[in-house]
Amino acid sequence: MATKTKRTSRSTRTTQAATKSRAKKNIYYFGKTRTDGNGKQKALLGGKGANLAEMTGIGLPVPPGFTLTTQCCDDYYKNGKKLPAGLMDGVKRSIKMLEKELNKKFGDADRPLLVSVRSGAEVSMPGMMNTILNLGLNDQSVSGVANATGNERFAYDSYRRLINMYGDVVMDVDHHHFEAAFDKIKKRYNAKLDTDVPTAGMIELCKAYRDVYRKHVGKSFPQDPYKQLELAIEAVFASWMQSRAVRYRQVEGISGLLGTAVNVQAMVYGNMGDTSGTGVAFTRDPSTGQNKFYGEFLINAQGEDVVAGIRTPQPVEQMRKWNKKVYEQLLKIKNKLEKHYKDMQDIEFTIENGRLFMLQTRNGKRTGAAAVKLACDMVKERLIDEKTAVKRIPAGDLTQLLLPSFDPAAKKKATVLTVGLPASPGGAVGKLAFTAEEAVARTQAGEAVLLVRKETNPEDIDGMHSAAGILTSTGGMTSHAAVVARGWGRCCVAGAGQVHIDEKGRKIKVGGKTYTHKDTLSIDGSTGEVMLGQVATKVPKMSGDFATVMGWADKHRTMKVRTNADTPADAKRARDFGAQGIGLCRTEHMFFEGERIMAMREMIMAHHREQRQAALNKLLPFQRKDFIGIFTAMKGLPVTVRLLDPPLHEFLPHDAKSQSEMAKRLKLSPAEVKSRVAQLHESNPMLGHRGCRLSVTYPEILQMQVTAIAEAAIACKSKKVDAQPEIMIPLVGTASELRVLRELAAETIKQTRKAKKFSGKLAITIGTMIEIPRAALSAAEISEHADFFSFGTNDLTQLTICNSRDDVNTFLPDYLAKELLPCDPFQSLDTAGVGQLLELGVKGGRSANKKLKCGICGEHGGDPASIQFCQKVGLDYVSCSPFRVPIARLAAAQAALKNA
Amino acid sequence: MATKTKRTSRSTRTTQAATKSRAKKNIYYFGKTRTDGNGKQKALLGGKGANLAEMTGIGLPVPPGFTLTTQCCDDYYKNGKKLPAGLMDGVKRSIKMLEKELNKKFGDADRPLLVSVRSGAEVSMPGMMNTILNLGLNDQSVSGVANATGNERFAYDSYRRLINMYGDVVMDVDHHHFEAAFDKIKKRYNAKLDTDVPTAGMIELCKAYRDVYRKHVGKSFPQDPYKQLELAIEAVFASWMQSRAVRYRQVEGISGLLGTAVNVQAMVYGNMGDTSGTGVAFTRDPSTGQNKFYGEFLINAQGEDVVAGIRTPQPVEQMRKWNKKVYEQLLKIKNKLEKHYKDMQDIEFTIENGRLFMLQTRNGKRTGAAAVKLACDMVKERLIDEKTAVKRIPAGDLTQLLLPSFDPAAKKKATVLTVGLPASPGGAVGKLAFTAEEAVARTQAGEAVLLVRKETNPEDIDGMHSAAGILTSTGGMTSHAAVVARGWGRCCVAGAGQVHIDEKGRKIKVGGKTYTHKDTLSIDGSTGEVMLGQVATKVPKMSGDFATVMGWADKHRTMKVRTNADTPADAKRARDFGAQGIGLCRTEHMFFEGERIMAMREMIMAHHREQRQAALNKLLPFQRKDFIGIFTAMKGLPVTVRLLDPPLHEFLPHDAKSQSEMAKRLKLSPAEVKSRVAQLHESNPMLGHRGCRLSVTYPEILQMQVTAIAEAAIACKSKKVDAQPEIMIPLVGTASELRVLRELAAETIKQTRKAKKFSGKLAITIGTMIEIPRAALSAAEISEHADFFSFGTNDLTQLTICNSRDDVNTFLPDYLAKELLPCDPFQSLDTAGVGQLLELGVKGGRSANKKLKCGICGEHGGDPASIQFCQKVGLDYVSCSPFRVPIARLAAAQAALKNA
Repeated sequence: MATKTKRTSRSTRTTQAATKSRAKKNIYYFGKTRTDGNGKQKALLGGKGANLAEMTGIGLPVPPGFTLTTQCCDDYYKNGKKLPAGLMDGVKRSIKMLEKELNKKFGDADRPLLVSVRSGAEVSMPGMMNTILNLGLNDQSVSGVANATGNERFAYDSYRRLINMYGDVVMDVDHHHFEAAFDKIKKRYNAKLDTDVPTAGMIELCKAYRDVYRKHVGKSFPQDPYKQLELAIEAVFASWMQSRAVRYRQVEGISGLLGTAVNVQAMVYGNMGDTSGTGVAFTRDPSTGQNKFYGEFLINAQGEDVVAGIRTPQPVEQMRKWNKKVYEQLLKIKNKLEKHYKDMQDIEFTIENGRLFMLQTRNGKRTGAAAVKLACDMVKERLIDEKTAVKRIPAGDLTQLLLPSFDPAAKKKATVLTVGLPASPGGAVGKLAFTAEEAVARTQAGEAVLLVRKETNPEDIDGMHSAAGILTSTGGMTSHAAVVARGWGRCCVAGAGQVHIDEKGRKIKVGGKTYTHKDTLSIDGSTGEVMLGQVATKVPKMSGDFATVMGWADKHRTMKVRTNADTPADAKRARDFGAQGIGLCRTEHMFFEGERIMAMREMIMAHHREQRQAALNKLLPFQRKDFIGIFTAMKGLPVTVRLLDPPLHEFLPHDAKSQSEMAKRLKLSPAEVKSRVAQLHESNPMLGHRGCRLSVTYPEILQMQVTAIAEAAIACKSKKVDAQPEIMIPLVGTASELRVLRELAAETIKQTRKAKKFSGKLAITIGTMIEIPRAALSAAEISEHADFFSFGTNDLTQLTICNSRDDVNTFLPDYLAKELLPCDPFQSLDTAGVGQLLELGVKGGRSANKKLKCGICGEHGGDPASIQFCQKVGLDYVSCSPFRVPIARLAAAQAALKNA
Repeated sequence: MATKTKRTSRSTRTTQAATKSRAKKNIYYFGKTRTDGNGKQKALLGGKGANLAEMTGIGLPVPPGFTLTTQCCDDYYKNGKKLPAGLMDGVKRSIKMLEKELNKKFGDADRPLLVSVRSGAEVSMPGMMNTILNLGLNDQSVSGVANATGNERFAYDSYRRLINMYGDVVMDVDHHHFEAAFDKIKKRYNAKLDTDVPTAGMIELCKAYRDVYRKHVGKSFPQDPYKQLELAIEAVFASWMQSRAVRYRQVEGISGLLGTAVNVQAMVYGNMGDTSGTGVAFTRDPSTGQNKFYGEFLINAQGEDVVAGIRTPQPVEQMRKWNKKVYEQLLKIKNKLEKHYKDMQDIEFTIENGRLFMLQTRNGKRTGAAAVKLACDMVKERLIDEKTAVKRIPAGDLTQLLLPSFDPAAKKKATVLTVGLPASPGGAVGKLAFTAEEAVARTQAGEAVLLVRKETNPEDIDGMHSAAGILTSTGGMTSHAAVVARGWGRCCVAGAGQVHIDEKGRKIKVGGKTYTHKDTLSIDGSTGEVMLGQVATKVPKMSGDFATVMGWADKHRTMKVRTNADTPADAKRARDFGAQGIGLCRTEHMFFEGERIMAMREMIMAHHREQRQAALNKLLPFQRKDFIGIFTAMKGLPVTVRLLDPPLHEFLPHDAKSQSEMAKRLKLSPAEVKSRVAQLHESNPMLGHRGCRLSVTYPEILQMQVTAIAEAAIACKSKKVDAQPEIMIPLVGTASELRVLRELAAETIKQTRKAKKFSGKLAITIGTMIEIPRAALSAAEISEHADFFSFGTNDLTQLTICNSRDDVNTFLPDYLAKELLPCDPFQSLDTAGVGQLLELGVKGGRSANKKLKCGICGEHGGDPASIQFCQKVGLDYVSCSPFRVPIARLAAAQAALKNA
C-alpha cells in the first residue's frame, strides 16, 4: 500500500522538482545562529533536510548543521562528477558557524566537533544511499571524545566504526577485510562478542583498521577532517546513481528528481554519563488515542539501545524524577509540536550532559481506534477541522473497529503453525471440521468449528455460514472462500499452502504434525496466522466518535455507497452500516438452497424447453419470496439483482456417489447424469458458457428470474413497500446481446403486469455488468440499451491481466516478492491497466447515454485506493461487502475531498 | 463473410445517402423512349433501379419501366404515410410512355400491359420487402393474356396469383384463407398438385379468390389497374418500416438510408409458345475461367423453370439452331457486357415471341481457379490492369488451389453422417484410428487413417502428423487440432459434437450407427462434412497464372508476409510459398519429442534450482540443433522464436498408468508424480502459470532457451549462414516483466558470446507478444523494452471477448445462429472490439519507440478481412500457416491497394 501511495503521487513530485526555479544558494544552515530553510522545501533540501530546518525554525533544540541542496547533486553530475567550484569553501564557512555555535572544534583534541553525513532525497529511499557517522574523528580528536565522555572505550569504538564505514562506503574497501582484522583481536582477547573486547583491544583495533585501510586504499586514513568531509559528501552524491538506488527508483516509479541532498549535522550523545540519556515518545497514546504523553527513555544510552531491547527503558513520566527541568522542556516541546504539525507526533530525543536535543519528529502511526478518537478530539480542541479529520483516518484501518480480533497480549504467546493469506479479517477459534455437513451438524450441536477445505464452492455455503471461521489451503484473496467470507464478515485464512488436508482421514498436517477434528486452532483473518489452541479474543466497542466520523464523511462524499448482499439479513446489516442500496445481489444461492437444487438439476437435465420450463416453474415461487424479503429489507433503496451467472456444471455433483443419488431422485440413469456433467465440462470455465450466455441459450431462465422480480415488486407495492429493483444482465460483451436480452426482460415484465393485472408504477430499470474487456471497449454501443453500468472489476481484472482468481497462488506471490507488481490487483485496482478500461467504459457509456448510472461491484468497491480512482473517473456509487460499508463511506469522502 | 463486408462499408453508405443533394425528380424512366438514370445512382434509385437504368442505358433490350426514387419513400413517411402530391400523375405519364413503347395498354382486353412492382433499397435486403407480379390483370385483361399466350390456363393462373399476392401483401389478408379456397377446388377436381387443376378450375379459382378478397378486405378486388398500382406502391413504401425489415437493418448494421425505391417494370414471358424461351448464362466458364460462353436455356418456359430443374435445359450453344438471330444478338450482348462491366457476367434473359429481353446482369461467382485465370486473361486482353486483377480475386478462394479436395461429382453422391467445423481445408479419406500411437503404427504399416479424438493435445502430435486427416468431437476453429492441422495443411474437421467417441472400445457412434477401426470415412475440412466410405479426391494443379498473380501481389503490397513454423520442413515449405521470415516459431515440441520429454519431466519434478539446471542441460543440445536447422532453412530471413509458453502440467501424464511409468523412469514414487500433477492443476489454465510467468519463477528455463538460440546463431555464423533470430517473450502484461526478462536474456547472450569466444556480429533482437489486454493498454511502457511487438490475436481474442478457444462450441454456435455475432471471432478478427486493442497497442508502442516493428502471429494473420485491418493499423507484417502464405500475400496486396 505504501508503494501504491508513492505511485499515485509520482506526477506531483515530478512537477515539483521540474518547475522549481533553480536555486543559487548551495548550502542551507539550520541552528540557533540562523535557519535558512523550512519544511516546504523538500524538492531542494530533501525530506530530511527540510524537516530538520522546520524543527529548528520553530525553535526546537535540534543539533545544528547544514544541508547541501539537491541542486548541488545535479551540478555534481553535470560537472562530470566533481563538486561544484567553491562548494567546499561554503562547507568550511558552515563548519565554522557550527563550531562557534557549539563551542567545539572540528578535529580538535579537547572539544572535538563530530558530524554525521547523511543523504536525503525529496522522496524517502530507505537504506538506498550512504550515511557516515562520527566524522571528524582522527588520532587526535579520539582522545578528546574520550575525555568529554569519560569513556575511552566508547571513543575508540566510535573511531573504528568511522574507519570501517568510511573505508566501506567512501573508498569501496570490502567489508570482509575489516571483519578479519576484528576477528584476530577478538581471538587475542578471547572475546566472543564485540562488546567483550576491552578498551585496549579497541585501541589496537583502530590501528589494525587503519592498516587495512592503507593496504586497500593505497593511502592513509585521512586525518584532516575537512578532507574526510569532502570525500564523504562526494560519496553521498555518487551513491545517487549507484545501481541499487537507480533500480529502487525504477521499481518504485520515482522519476524527475534533481538528486539527493547531503545533511551534515553535529553528533550528540546520550551515553556521556548519568546526566545523559535518550528516548522515544508519542504525544498521545497511539493505541487508544487518549490524550496522554506516552513513551520511554533510558539513562546513559544511545538511541539504538532503546530499539535493541537490551536494557529495559523507563516510562517517560519517570523523567520528571530524574531531571524535572528537561522533562518539563520536553512536555512543552510535545505541546508545541502538536500545535505546529496539528497531529499526534512520534518523537526521538537525546539528552547530552543535561541538554535536550530533538532528533526527529513525524506523524505517529496509530491503530484504527486511536485514529478515530484522535480525529474527534482534535476537532473538539479546534486543532483541525472536520475535513482534515476525515482525510486523516486511514479508511482501511476501520476494519479493526468492526470485527472481533485476538487480544494482542494473548497472541504474543501463541504458537503460529503457518501463515496463509489474510482473506477476511477478524479472529476465529474452533475445532476442525472437514466438510460442510460436518460443520453444520457440529455447530448445531453447540461446538465452535473451523471449516477446513482445500477450496470451497457454492455447495459448501451452509457449512461456511455455520463455521466460526474458514481455512483453505488453496485459493487467493478473491477465491470463493475469501469473497463469501468477507461478504458475511466471517473470518477466513485462505491459501495456507503448508496445510495438507486429508478430508477422508479427517485430519490435517502442518509442519510435520497432525491435527484432527478434536484439535482446536485459532485463525487470524487480518494477518493470515494459523495458531495452535484457543487464543483469547476481544470485541472492540463501536464508540460515539466512530458515528461522528461517519457523519462527517457522509457530509463530504459525493459517491453513494451500496453493498453486495444476497439475503434480507445481510441487507439489513449493511443498511445498519449505512449502505444506500444493494449494488450486487447475486442470485446463485436462490438455486442452491435445500429443495431448489433438485429443481435446478432437473432443469439442467431437461431435454427440451418444456421440461426446462416445468423445472423452472418450481423455482419461481422460491425466488419471488427471496426477492420480496430483500426488497422489503431495502425498501426505498435500489436493489441491483444480477441474473444467474455461474456455469451450469456448478449445480451438478461431480463425484459418482452424489451423481447416482441425484439420478435416483430425478429418475434418470447415473450414466445420463455423468454424461451431462462431462458435456458441461469446460477447459476454462471462467471463459465459458455462463452469465448472459445462459440466457441466450435458455431464454426461459431469464424469463423465470425476471418474472420473479416483477411479481415480487408488485407484491411489495401492494403492501406499500417501495421496491426499487434494477435488473443486471451479466457478462455482456456486445451491444446485440444486451439489446436482445433487454427486450426479452422488458417483454417479460409487461406480461407479468398483464397477468397480475397491475397498472401502477413499477420502475424496474435494466442494465449490465461491464466485466469483459470488449464491453468496456464498446461501451458507447452497449449503453444505448442500458440504464446503468456496474463494473465487475473482479472478472474485468482476471481478463485484462490474464489471471484466474482461483489459481492466483501459482505465480502472483513470486510477482509480488520480486516487485514486478506494486500490489495484488485483486485487492487494489490495477489503475494503470484495468483502470483504463474502467475510464473508457464510463466515458464511452455516457457519451451515448447521458443518463447512464455507473457503479462498481467488484471486490475493489471496498478498497480505499480503488475508491479514490472510482471518484476520479466519475462513478455514481461503489458497492462492497456489508462490513466494508463504513470504510467505503470514509474512503469516498476522502476521495471527494482529494479530487475537489 | 458477406455480413462482414457490409459492415465495413456501412460508413461509406451512410455518407453517400446523407450527402446526396435532394433530387426534385421523383420518377426515373428506363426504356427505348429515354433513360433517366444510371448505375451510379444507387442511393437515389436503389440497387435494382440503378442496375436496370445502366443496362438500358448501354443499349441492352431490357423490359422498360420506371423507378420511384428513395426520396419518394422518405417523403411518404414525412407526409404521414401518404404518397407525395402529384406522384400518381407522374406514374400515369410513365405508364402511358410504357404503353406507347410496347404497343400495349394497361388493363386492356386485347394487348394488356402487365407490370411487376418491386422494392429495391441502396443496399440489398433479400426477401425483406414486398414484390407484386402481373399487376394490371383484371377480369378483362385476363382474356387478353390468354389470347396473347394462347394459354388460357396460364392467364388465369397468373390472375389468381395476383389476387392472392395482392390480398396478402397489400391488404394483409391471411394467406390461409386463399389456401382453403384452393383446397376446395382441388378436391372438386380430384387434383393432388396445383398443376393438376385444369383451366376450368383455374377460372373458378379466380372467382373464389375474388370472394375471399371481398370478404376479408370489405371491398372488391380493384379492377382499375391504376388503383392496383397506387396501392401496390404504397404497400412497398410501407414495407420499408415493417418490423422484419427494421430488424434486418439493425442486425446488419445498415443505417442512414432514405428508404426503398419502387421499380415498376413491364412483364415479359418466355412461355408464350415455341418462339419464346428463357435462360441463364455466364460470359465465361465460372468453373475453369476459360473464355467460352457457358449457360443453358429452355424453350417455352419461365425463369423459375430453369432454376426448379423440372425440365432439363439445353446448352446455350443450341440456341443457334433454334433462333440464329437471337443467339447472335445474345453473343453480341455478352461481349458488350464484359467490355462494359470489365468482368465476367452472370446473365438472365427471356425471349418473348422471338424478342430478346435482358432481365439481369451481375458479376458472376467463380471458383478460385477461375478467378485466377480470368484475372490473368483479362489483363492480357487489356480489359483490366494488374491492380484491378489483384483486387478482384477473393484471396480466401486460393485455398482451393493449394489443397487436395473432393471431386464435386463424387461428393454429391456421398452419405453425409454429420457436419462439424471446417477447421482445416482439404479432403481426407481413411480408416478410423483412436490414439496417436495407433495412427502412427497403422500409417507406418501403409494404411491411410483418420485420427479420431475428443480433442487433441501436444502428446498427440506424432499421430496427427501421421494421419491423413483429423476429426475431433470438441474444440473450435482454433482448438489445438485445428491450429496444428492448418499449420501443416493437414485436413481437419473439429468439434463434430454428434460424433460420440468410445476410445477404449475403439468405436464411434454417429446418428445411431457405430463405426470401428475397420470403417472408412471421408472428411471435408473445407465444409466440415463427415461422409461414409471413400469419396474420390482430385488434386488441382498450380498453374502459371497463379505465379503471375502472386508476382503482381508482391509488387503492390507493403506488409511483409511471414509464416508460423516450428520445423525446418515447415519453414522450407513456407519459404517456397513466398514467406519472408518466421513470425512465430513455437518451441513446445522441442520439449516433447522422443527423449526430451523425460528431461523436461525431470525438470518439472526437480526440488531445487540445481536439479532443474541439470535437467535443462540435457535439453540444451536438442534445442540448439533444432534452432540451427530452422535458422539454416530461413537463412537471410528473420525467425521469431517464442520462448516456452504452455503451463508445465501439459508436459506431465494425467493417467495413473503413465504416471507410474514416468515415476519408474525418474526413480520417484508414483505418489510424488501424482502430487505434482495435482499441484500444477489450475481451474483456468488459460489464465494461469504459463508464458513469461514460467521464466519469472524459473529463470533457468529462459536462460537455457536463449543460450540454445545464441549458440545456434553462432554456429550458423561460423558456417556463413546468416541467422536472424528474434527472441519473443510471451504473455507479457507489464513493462516490469519485460524489463527484467529482457535484461536476463541480454545477459545470457553476452555470457554465451564470452563462453563461445565469439566477437562477430550477432544481431539478436528481443521483443514480446502482445496477447493480454493489459499489454495492449500499456504498450507505451512496454515498448521501451521491446524491439518488436507481435500481436498474438488468438489469446488476445480469448481474453478480450472472454471466450476459451477450447470451449468455443458451448455457446458460440448459438451466437452465430442468432446473429449476435457477425462471424467467428477466432476466424476473422473482431475489429470493433479486439481491433481497438490492436490499434491502441500499435499507437502506444510506436509513441514510445519509433523503431518498433509490429506484426501479427495469431490465426487471423491468414484471414483476408483481418489482413485488411492489419494494413489499416499499420502493421509491418502478418504471419500465418505455411499454406495460407499465398492467400496472405494476395490479401496484403488488396489491403494496400484499398488503403492507398
